[in-house]
Order: sequence, then structure tokens, then C-alpha cells
Amino acid sequence: MTVQYCLHNGLAAAPELAENRGLAYGDGVFETLLVIDGKPLWSTEHLRRMAQAAAKLGLHCDEQLIGAEVEAVSRRSQGRGVLKIQLFRAAGGRGYHGASGASERLLSLWPAPVSAVWRNGAKVILCTTRLSENYQLAGIKHLNRLEQVLAAREIQRAGADEGLMLDTSGALIEGGRSNLFAVRDGILLTPSLLKSGVRGIMREKIIAAAADLSQPVKVCTLFPSHIVSADELFLCNSVFGIWPVTSVGCVHKEIGPVSRQLQASFESSFHV
Amino acid sequence: MTVQYCLHNGLAAAPELAENRGLAYGDGVFETLLVIDGKPLWSTEHLRRMAQAAAKLGLHCDEQLIGAEVEAVSRRSQGRGVLKIQLFRAAGGRGYHGASGASERLLSLWPAPVSAVWRNGAKVILCTTRLSENYQLAGIKHLNRLEQVLAAREIQRAGADEGLMLDTSGALIEGGRSNLFAVRDGILLTPSLLKSGVRGIMREKIIAAAADLSQPVKVCTLFPSHIVSADELFLCNSVFGIWPVTSVGCVHKEIGPVSRQLQASFESSFHV
Repeated sequence: MTVQYCLHNGLAAAPELAENRGLAYGDGVFETLLVIDGKPLWSTEHLRRMAQAAAKLGLHCDEQLIGAEVEAVSRRSQGRGVLKIQLFRAAGGRGYHGASGASERLLSLWPAPVSAVWRNGAKVILCTTRLSENYQLAGIKHLNRLEQVLAAREIQRAGADEGLMLDTSGALIEGGRSNLFAVRDGILLTPSLLKSGVRGIMREKIIAAAADLSQPVKVCTLFPSHIVSADELFLCNSVFGIWPVTSVGCVHKEIGPVSRQLQASFESSFHV
Repeated sequence: MTVQYCLHNGLAAAPELAENRGLAYGDGVFETLLVIDGKPLWSTEHLRRMAQAAAKLGLHCDEQLIGAEVEAVSRRSQGRGVLKIQLFRAAGGRGYHGASGASERLLSLWPAPVSAVWRNGAKVILCTTRLSENYQLAGIKHLNRLEQVLAAREIQRAGADEGLMLDTSGALIEGGRSNLFAVRDGILLTPSLLKSGVRGIMREKIIAAAADLSQPVKVCTLFPSHIVSADELFLCNSVFGIWPVTSVGCVHKEIGPVSRQLQASFESSFHV
């Protein structure tokens, strides 16, 4: 099945965009890496996660080839940058089926955001947009991100730094573009991502760093009540590192010692 | 935020694809229309649904402009064709937020599939891929379609014509690319789409046609047990019309009088 004619914003166009299965269905995965002085941070971990996610979608992912491209694109970055890798199913006919495992890859380099939140803490809202639950897609960073787009509109409207999201059952899962940690009675807690959410590389780095610091960690089910009862809350991702939370809606939180200690472990990569 | 460098399949590329929010997040909606002898079928209904879906995403949709483009592209079709309209958020920076309501539109013309299923009936499987539940996104035909992609792989592997999908709670919602109807004790039943699924134009046409035929219809919650207990089952969409179901896995079904009577109402558009 081939495109017979294509009109893009009123102009006759080549068929490529209409044949793009990433655009048509979100049929693909992505990664976002921090680049520091021409070097990608944790590219092995990001590429491994991408390969695992691609395997779940039956999508070819050549870790070695993409790794070489990541190195090449990173070298073009000066100072701090963000490298995004998109891997989506190669052009195919119209319709959900009929697709092979062949993939296209798109690497793009962006300026790194600058923020004072690392030091001053994040003002966060509780989003009304919920994360749906799907065991097959949970944990992977796929291109179906409408829930995050809707949450981002709420966050922007509220003038907040980030928003917390619940799944449809009411469990607290993650931030709109970050993973969540809470500290309670000396234990570091982070939501289980078996039913929804993205298993962040930074989340894994923090769990490993906590182990090095002999800080007990528990992956568990968190609820909105934990926002009030937690001694500390912080958010994390691979681009901004660790953001201590100073408020969730009208609930004020203090930046605590566990958040600051973990920040110290990653100071050299994220705090500039 | 602008793209500093872009590499597509190993070659330096223009930034457009990396800036495409439809590709990045599935941030958009689509419609698929049948075109018969240069004329789109039910374009008013499709455009109204697209505008309603776009409004839910805060996405600009000029029904009149797109309507004119639909007419123009349809005129290029000979015999029977399929016209796909994709409406996605205009290029923006990296990150979920920061997006305006500005949209891009992409119309493409494809050959219409030919099938004997209208007459002979569809062999259907029950997919293991589930539909997730989200009140905000339910009913709309958005670009986040990974669940349908995974279902399509199951259907293809089984050599089936279509697959039935349950939501995460176990309710029967729809086919991978179609809506579902069951007939039981003389009543036409179709699943509620409040939590997941796509509100199909053909589904609405069938509900209206049933009313004209004094055929009682009930929108309700269906479960897999209805597959066995139903007197008739059929699937529908705007491209293939009505497909009577002759089997779901190892459960055999007869093509019944209600399915055939409703097919007769739409014979002129779909049966060639």
C-alpha cells in the first residue's frame, strides 16, 4: 500500500511524512541524554534501556550503531546540551498491521535548560490528568505521550516547575517528566512502575547511590497521602538531575538531608 | 529552544522531523474516510469528530479549511480510495510543555483495501493486549496508538481478520481497528466508550440506522462471556463498513439477520 497523493498544510508533499509510523501511531521509543563538554552522560545505560523498550515493540535497535552516532552528535555540543534519540518503525502502509521490525533513528541536539530549582527547590502541583495502566507498556519510554502533554498544560497554567501524576487507581506514580522519591522515617521510597510510568535512568542511578550511602530504599505503592506524610520529596530525571520539592499545591515541604546528600553525589554532573 | 543539529538515519538532516510534536509525543488526532468516485463519505461527521477531539487536546482545527482540502484530495481518487487526515501540534521546542494550539495538517490518499469479509464473515481473535483506561482520552481518535499496533501484531500472527480488545478491567471494548456490536435476545448491544476506545463514525451511523429499522439498541458494559452468549456479533468501521463475525478463537458464530439487515442499509457504500 502506497500513498497516492499527499497534501501537507495545503501544499502537495512527498509521501514520507504520511508513511511515518512514528507520527501515525507513536510506534517507537525515545531517550533524552545530558551532554557535558561533548560527552554524553550514561549513554550505555540509555542505549540499553532503549534496546529493551524497542524489543517490547518488536523494533530493531542497533545499540552499537546508535552509540557511535550518539558520540558523533555529542562532539558537536559545546558546554551543556541535551541529546534526544528517537527510534520509530520504518515507513509502512496505512493501517496498524503490516509493519516489519525495521526502524528509523533520529538524533537531535538541543540547548540544555538552565534552572535554579536544583538549589531552591521545585514548586509542584498534583495534576488532574491521570496515567493509564498497561502492563505491556509500563516502564518504557515510548512515543505515546499524550498524558504527559496534557499534564504539561496543567503545570504551565499553574506556573509550577513540575506536576505529580496519579494512575487511574489513584496511586502516585511520577512527575510529568520525572520520577518521584519520598523520604519517610529515614527510608527512601519510590513508586513501583509495574503498571505505568517510565523507569528512569536517573531513578536507577539514585537507587544505586543510596545503596552506596547505606541509605535504605523501598520500591512500593505511594498514595497522595504520602505527599503530606513524607519528610522529604524529590524529583529526578537524566537532564535536570535531582529537584527537591518545596511545595505540592498548598502543602509546604522542607528540603531535607537525604535530598541534599543525594544531590551531592551527582553535583559534578548537574549543578552548574 | 531550537534544534542545533540533527542526524536522521546517519545523515545530517533538516530540523523539521525532530521538531515534529506529532512524532515526538503523538500530540494530535486523525480520521480515516472512504472515498467513492472522487467523493468523501461522511466528511462532515468525520471533521466534526476531529474538531471535538482536537478541542480536548487544545489543538486548533479549522473544519472549513480542512473540509475544502478533503474535497480537493478526494477528487484525485479514482474508484475507491481511503483518505487519511492527520492533525498534529505545530513544531515546538523539546519537552512536553511550551506548545501552542497551532496545528499542522496532513492529508494522504491511499488505495482502498479489497476484502471478501463483508460477505463471508470475519475470523477474529481475542487479543491479549489490553486497552488502557483514561477518561480524558477515551473516545477520541488520537495519535497514541501503540496498543493497537501491539494488537495488530497478534492479529497478524494468528492470521485473523481482526481482534477483540478488553480494557484493563476486563470489559470488552472494541476491535483493533473497529467498533463492536452484539445481538442478544433481539437487542443490539455495543460497549460504552467512556473509559477507553474510539467513538467510531460508523458506530454512530449503525445506531441511527437501527433506530430507523425500529431495532432496539443498548450501550452497555460487555464482557468476554458475551462472545459466547451473543446470537450475532459484528464489527464496523468507516472503511470496511460492517463485518459479521463467524468466529472468535474457537467459538463459532453464525451470521445473523440483524447483521445482514444492517449491512443492507449500507450496501451501496461498502459492498462492491
